Amino acid sequence: MDNRSGLPVVGMVGGGQLARMTHQAAIALGQSLRVLAAAPDDGAALVAADVHIGHHEDLDALRTFAKGCEVVTFDHEHVPQSHLRALEADGVNIAPGAAALRYAQDKRAMRERLSELGVPVPRWAAASDETAVRRLAAEVGWPLVVKSVRGGYDGRGVWVVGEADELPATELIVEEKVPLRRELSALVARSPFGQVAAYPVVETVQRDGICVEVLAPAPDLGEELALRAEELAIRLATELGVVGLLAVELFDTGTGLLVNELAMRPHNSGHWTIEGARTSQFEQHLRAVLDYPLGDTAPTAPAVAMANVLGGQPGGMSIDERLHHLFAADPGIKVHLYGKQVRPGRKVGHVTALGEDRTQTRARARRAARWLRDATWEEPA
Amino acid sequence: MDNRSGLPVVGMVGGGQLARMTHQAAIALGQSLRVLAAAPDDGAALVAADVHIGHHEDLDALRTFAKGCEVVTFDHEHVPQSHLRALEADGVNIAPGAAALRYAQDKRAMRERLSELGVPVPRWAAASDETAVRRLAAEVGWPLVVKSVRGGYDGRGVWVVGEADELPATELIVEEKVPLRRELSALVARSPFGQVAAYPVVETVQRDGICVEVLAPAPDLGEELALRAEELAIRLATELGVVGLLAVELFDTGTGLLVNELAMRPHNSGHWTIEGARTSQFEQHLRAVLDYPLGDTAPTAPAVAMANVLGGQPGGMSIDERLHHLFAADPGIKVHLYGKQVRPGRKVGHVTALGEDRTQTRARARRAARWLRDATWEEPA
Repeated sequence: MDNRSGLPVVGMVGGGQLARMTHQAAIALGQSLRVLAAAPDDGAALVAADVHIGHHEDLDALRTFAKGCEVVTFDHEHVPQSHLRALEADGVNIAPGAAALRYAQDKRAMRERLSELGVPVPRWAAASDETAVRRLAAEVGWPLVVKSVRGGYDGRGVWVVGEADELPATELIVEEKVPLRRELSALVARSPFGQVAAYPVVETVQRDGICVEVLAPAPDLGEELALRAEELAIRLATELGVVGLLAVELFDTGTGLLVNELAMRPHNSGHWTIEGARTSQFEQHLRAVLDYPLGDTAPTAPAVAMANVLGGQPGGMSIDERLHHLFAADPGIKVHLYGKQVRPGRKVGHVTALGEDRTQTRARARRAARWLRDATWEEPA
Repeated sequence: MDNRSGLPVVGMVGGGQLARMTHQAAIALGQSLRVLAAAPDDGAALVAADVHIGHHEDLDALRTFAKGCEVVTFDHEHVPQSHLRALEADGVNIAPGAAALRYAQDKRAMRERLSELGVPVPRWAAASDETAVRRLAAEVGWPLVVKSVRGGYDGRGVWVVGEADELPATELIVEEKVPLRRELSALVARSPFGQVAAYPVVETVQRDGICVEVLAPAPDLGEELALRAEELAIRLATELGVVGLLAVELFDTGTGLLVNELAMRPHNSGHWTIEGARTSQFEQHLRAVLDYPLGDTAPTAPAVAMANVLGGQPGGMSIDERLHHLFAADPGIKVHLYGKQVRPGRKVGHVTALGEDRTQTRARARRAARWLRDATWEEPA
């Protein structure tokens, strides 16, 4: 076997929790993730050895960072298209590439492309096109949903507007307010070679526009619908030329599936795979961008539940003390903390419960997340 | 929840693969392991953010390193007792403590203490005590096994000697050459609070004095013997006052169990727990030294097999290329590479296979390790 210098360097732009957990996975593969972090106290910068400090909108910083990387990948979607194109023109191998990433960056381009592909999406219109908005409103009725074309996440960049409201002036689309049964997520990986691998489809539970829980597999989904969701995600990964992970956020309307959002990176709806699947999404993303054959996506337990830990009110019992109590109460719960400063509502970690029974497993994850946030075992009223 | 400054810092002396994998576990707990590495290219130093370079026999380096650590623990047994005592006198919290660690550092002290406790060990004598050696030889016959009191590992510091051989001049014990059926390992953790948790007992397969494979659980062990081994390890952890992990290496003679060696740290016989148990030994060690309640040790699959990847002859196909072929051949195999320079026979990584069938699982792990070493799928003749 050759020495470690034979192993390629993967660079990740962005130093958040996704880079932090990707670094954990990189260590097993004999690597050390190179991270471009905005600040030295970013979650990944706190734990990785090879950290560059720089901003993802600074092309010089991106260029310096990319030197010596076999491949550059992303913790978020915020690198401007012009910079992605410039890096590609320099000969940098970026994964996913600029052409694919555009559809995770620009909701309008995504809606247009998916419509061309005949993939079902909510009925929508560009906000600037008054005729189209009026036609949409006539079809589906007010209120409508308004979304920023770029930069929205965790409920930011999404509003519901009535007929009398004025539309904000930024670049927007409007779409029908879909009456939905629940939200699902289909996560797949694709390598440059063209290999694809799909994880079991999960249910994502939202509160105030933020994903708070993920249930794997999605309860009572039915084999046929699960297969349809997986096939859709595989088809999109292939048609859009994604390299790495693709998370397809879906509306389950009760009568069918609509594509809500796309993400081309490790995704909150895949955190359960760290313990819940034979190959975690973080390892899978590395394998995909390195063009390694993809790993087994089989689940490791019949029921897996992930709950995000949101920042609570400051003060009170320390996190260290909370961990003591949590581990005493549930020796099997798995905790992941991101090294972040706590702000109310900010995702500062997640917990995962694995078991035989779906209801119990979900209750364990909820209870643990609630405890870490608010230091109470009580369910909110 | 308090911010991350509420989390304690764990320091680990030694920058090898055990520290490297402990750092992976620390990241999930919201931490970043502080590592005292002898060189910047030690396995853990390559991947951790908080690295001090210094030698474990340099008391000043140890003292500087320990400042600001909630607890200092170890990747190996090589810190001199005098230094451990000095740190304790300074008020540093070391885990395991000097008094316990002595029994993992000094085979003679360990044999004596275990004999006092009535725990079965091979018949032995101090090499310096000619009368005792003659008496032992008369009892059990030549050849005898000679062991360095300190510093031996992976077959180093162990010889077999005949009657005519001269004993080397270092500090030694001699013991009977036990006719054994196989070797087992019982791994437990103990916290300062006194909580203990035992992992399933495993079989360790040795070749030339080096552990090459671990089978979890140990095949055909029988409930009664498994329980006896677990109870023995728990009793030793408690009697010796261990804090952290204790690995008890056992000879299974076919008629009973004899204690061969003790280790008080994450242990090669526990690497299977990363994917094979709900709580990895690395997380468990951190929980124990931090006095957190211990994690669930239940296995995640009916059969788990770990095989060490040893360095092969230099040259040939790169490790990167070998990984490509391996992942194509077995999408479920889990690989852990340690970032080490390859030397023939050196442990440079390990692989883990999980499954339903013991024989198949073992074959997968062996085959993967052999491939990574020698780039051949053939079994050695």
